Amino acid sequence: MTARPSRRGSALREHVAAVPLIDHHVHGCWLDPVGRSRFENALNEANTEPLAAFDSAFDTQLGFAVRAHCAPTLGLARHADADAYWAKRCSIPEDLLAHRFLAGAQVSDWLIDTGFACGVADLEEFAGLGAGRVHEVVRLETVAEQAAAASGDYADAFDDLLWRQARTAVGVKSILAYRGGFVGDLSEPSAAEVADAAARWRDAGGDRLTDRVLLRFGLHRALRLGKPLQFHVGFGDRDCDLDTANPLHLLDFLRVSGDTPVMLLHCYPYEREAGYLAQAFNNVYLDGGLSVNYLGVRAEAFIGRLLEMAPFRKILYSSDGFGPPELHFLGSRLWRNGIGRVVQRFVDADEWSEADGIRVIDLIAHRNARRVYRLD
Amino acid sequence: MTARPSRRGSALREHVAAVPLIDHHVHGCWLDPVGRSRFENALNEANTEPLAAFDSAFDTQLGFAVRAHCAPTLGLARHADADAYWAKRCSIPEDLLAHRFLAGAQVSDWLIDTGFACGVADLEEFAGLGAGRVHEVVRLETVAEQAAAASGDYADAFDDLLWRQARTAVGVKSILAYRGGFVGDLSEPSAAEVADAAARWRDAGGDRLTDRVLLRFGLHRALRLGKPLQFHVGFGDRDCDLDTANPLHLLDFLRVSGDTPVMLLHCYPYEREAGYLAQAFNNVYLDGGLSVNYLGVRAEAFIGRLLEMAPFRKILYSSDGFGPPELHFLGSRLWRNGIGRVVQRFVDADEWSEADGIRVIDLIAHRNARRVYRLD
Amino acid sequence: MTARPSRRGSALREHVAAVPLIDHHVHGCWLDPVGRSRFENALNEANTEPLAAFDSAFDTQLGFAVRAHCAPTLGLARHADADAYWAKRCSIPEDLLAHRFLAGAQVSDWLIDTGFACGVADLEEFAGLGAGRVHEVVRLETVAEQAAAASGDYADAFDDLLWRQARTAVGVKSILAYRGGFVGDLSEPSAAEVADAAARWRDAGGDRLTDRVLLRFGLHRALRLGKPLQFHVGFGDRDCDLDTANPLHLLDFLRVSGDTPVMLLHCYPYEREAGYLAQAFNNVYLDGGLSVNYLGVRAEAFIGRLLEMAPFRKILYSSDGFGPPELHFLGSRLWRNGIGRVVQRFVDADEWSEADGIRVIDLIAHRNARRVYRLD
Repeated sequence: MTARPSRRGSALREHVAAVPLIDHHVHGCWLDPVGRSRFENALNEANTEPLAAFDSAFDTQLGFAVRAHCAPTLGLARHADADAYWAKRCSIPEDLLAHRFLAGAQVSDWLIDTGFACGVADLEEFAGLGAGRVHEVVRLETVAEQAAAASGDYADAFDDLLWRQARTAVGVKSILAYRGGFVGDLSEPSAAEVADAAARWRDAGGDRLTDRVLLRFGLHRALRLGKPLQFHVGFGDRDCDLDTANPLHLLDFLRVSGDTPVMLLHCYPYEREAGYLAQAFNNVYLDGGLSVNYLGVRAEAFIGRLLEMAPFRKILYSSDGFGPPELHFLGSRLWRNGIGRVVQRFVDADEWSEADGIRVIDLIAHRNARRVYRLD
Repeated sequence: MTARPSRRGSALREHVAAVPLIDHHVHGCWLDPVGRSRFENALNEANTEPLAAFDSAFDTQLGFAVRAHCAPTLGLARHADADAYWAKRCSIPEDLLAHRFLAGAQVSDWLIDTGFACGVADLEEFAGLGAGRVHEVVRLETVAEQAAAASGDYADAFDDLLWRQARTAVGVKSILAYRGGFVGDLSEPSAAEVADAAARWRDAGGDRLTDRVLLRFGLHRALRLGKPLQFHVGFGDRDCDLDTANPLHLLDFLRVSGDTPVMLLHCYPYEREAGYLAQAFNNVYLDGGLSVNYLGVRAEAFIGRLLEMAPFRKILYSSDGFGPPELHFLGSRLWRNGIGRVVQRFVDADEWSEADGIRVIDLIAHRNARRVYRLD
Repeated sequence: MTARPSRRGSALREHVAAVPLIDHHVHGCWLDPVGRSRFENALNEANTEPLAAFDSAFDTQLGFAVRAHCAPTLGLARHADADAYWAKRCSIPEDLLAHRFLAGAQVSDWLIDTGFACGVADLEEFAGLGAGRVHEVVRLETVAEQAAAASGDYADAFDDLLWRQARTAVGVKSILAYRGGFVGDLSEPSAAEVADAAARWRDAGGDRLTDRVLLRFGLHRALRLGKPLQFHVGFGDRDCDLDTANPLHLLDFLRVSGDTPVMLLHCYPYEREAGYLAQAFNNVYLDGGLSVNYLGVRAEAFIGRLLEMAPFRKILYSSDGFGPPELHFLGSRLWRNGIGRVVQRFVDADEWSEADGIRVIDLIAHRNARRVYRLD
């Protein structure tokens, strides 16, 4: 659009800076100090090996965004260099960092995926940081692994564990993307197929679930539960074949998913495909999650693409923060800056009214999540 | 590019606002009043079910664009709210709405796909609205279904029907995307295969064509006809598997398609792939069709991507309007605004001359369509 | 971002205009005069047939960029029309054109793929143009075809040829994208499989290599060599199935590729997927290569997307120029303009410091290439 810079933009800018967020998919943050290489590796999502000696996670969009937006929270100048940032960070206790960054995110509700929580705050510890209400999201594959370890009928054990854990949870999550991806049959298996597959898996030791029958079983049990079902989609680490994490491969599953809300998380580089699905199915939602942090200054262009085919009542906010509390803060900051600039340009071009812009920001910031997760 | 705002832009802006368009792929508009839920559903392309109670098609990019650009045509202020828009719309007879919106589109020639025309103006009624010349585009799958219902040899019946209907038509259209998609063998079947498949289909009742042999037969008959052959590509409703509507799956077919112009319609989110094909094959063309309306203010970014790999003599305009005449108008308005802003920025950055910008707009607006459909 | 135009941008702008480049993937340029149709076809990458009579390669983004940026090098006004450009070009000897355009590129080192060199300057001739140092990149499939023509054991002949040629080369290149694409098994074949496949190929005449076993063999030999291994990725001519040239299909290969640098070239429209791979693997790099020239003014948006998931120490510059020396020059000019504008906007928005912007430009312009190809 024509850049028609407008003083009228200030109400929108003020609104987006202050609006409370619901972070509908996030993990715990560190509470104990870490070394620099672990910190830098935590700023690389895709690589599963230690970073190469010639490389630095500070020389990425995420690293630049940390230096631009997190440095001031530590009392440093914007764009402080990597060594200065690291030195200053080391001088502050990790729990104090967590406290400061979480508070800075201005998040009213954190929906925490407890399926992978190694080395990070658990629900109680997270709540203790006083940065907002805490809700649980139960990971299906973890429930399955618990059911494999339990005695008796697998399906019964799974159901029992799922219903018990989900009673106090607001939703469930699947990492099918990391367990073979979305390609192939995702229909509901028969009871006999489940019993056979469970027996084979238990015989084989019952660790990391990759059996397709049991993965499908878990998804369909989650559909019956009726609480929002989150899927990791797209961008993640290289254990996942990115092309099998394209949400279009979920089409047949979505066609039988009924009314249970299905949340497509992260989505890069398939955010346009995800937006299409959110238009195509009444029960499909999407967010930009993890991708926003990793894109840094480029998150703005990505957020623009999220505002394409998806109805505005179907888009949510999340940070997917895990580990460094910088991520819990930065997700919020980059989302606010990005959507603020995108929508301001829509308003400056007189394609949207400012009131509509503010309303859409509220929908994505918290209203949609409050409705779909029934947080009131 | 650097935003170097330029007063010199006015000639281009005036030109793009007034240039007559050829809408090379469009359907009929409503002539009779509809209820609000039907109207809102007509603003959602992908969903095949009624919209959820919590949702509104007004809260989408298309809905916002209707309120921004169509409201003034009804005598309302820009950004009038949804209820006000609906109330005002109800106070005006549907045929008057059609007349007003179609005239506002400034389209000289409408190329109308008559394959699906339930509840909308037919060719004669459309022509009667006095908003431009009307031409027919014949849908191959409809011809096939007529041939199945006819007596005698299927291939002969198909040929007879196709040649008869195509005599007065300017092109043909395939919705293969909705009948199994582009993946797989698209070579020409033998006469024996066609006869066998037709017999099976007729025995099974001969309704909705999904048989691959007969779909392939239709395509190759269309190639021999030599008139432009349109393909629905990408974005559509969820009956189509979007990933099988990626035009790259047409590669082998295009390699044997000879000189018959092949028009890739809509293309989202595969517009860059379609642009590549338009560079790779002398007979391949593309447009943004349907996608422009659904992207609203984001159509500008999409139109920018259409201007990448495709030669400028291979890009066309269409609205794909169907039902609400708002769509026939809005396609034109959003395309004019979008391409005007995109090209103006090229000119402001001194990467294109203004004269070239105007010339490219003319090519896409009408010159390419006039040449390839032989409209003179 | 908000366009906050800043006078402070001048240091960055001056830097990007003058920084010397390493063109890490390029071919020879013409030294002898050509006719206009050959010239125009050389401005179309994807089409393998003569351009249609109604078309002109000047009416493309590349054609417009030639007229905008190359015309002044010939002493013409910016945006000189196609006929004027052609007439002027014909008045200057081709070797003088080469000299002038290559010098204008401000490239310190040219890494030349000698695998396809029909009608263009060889290494010695290129060096003789005095426009920078020249290094060789050996094409694996050419080595294979030489090995097929040699006598004795195929694997021994291949190894001998590869090690001999690679001794003075800085890297190797694979055009697997054009020889069946990336889909399918890319593991290392056994010695017996190689011997069988080589025997079959030699019996069949031993020309153009398409045998998957031997293609895989060549890749794994290249991995052992340890010098950077370049892959043609994405956009190219239509002999390649573009969807099988998506770098995500290389995932299994990359998982076993060890420390050997793997360079993903061109990448359009898969540059975001390529950037993900560069984050996921310590040994994966990418560039925009060929795509930059073909996108013309739209290269800026593409260069922005290259600056997403890929760490900044993993992005390189190349032109992929072949034939008209305009391409060797224009790649440089469009890259400088594009990255300059992209990074300037990051700086103007205060998301990057200007010093960081200059540093990232240096990394991509030459520092990364110098490190990975060990050019010192």
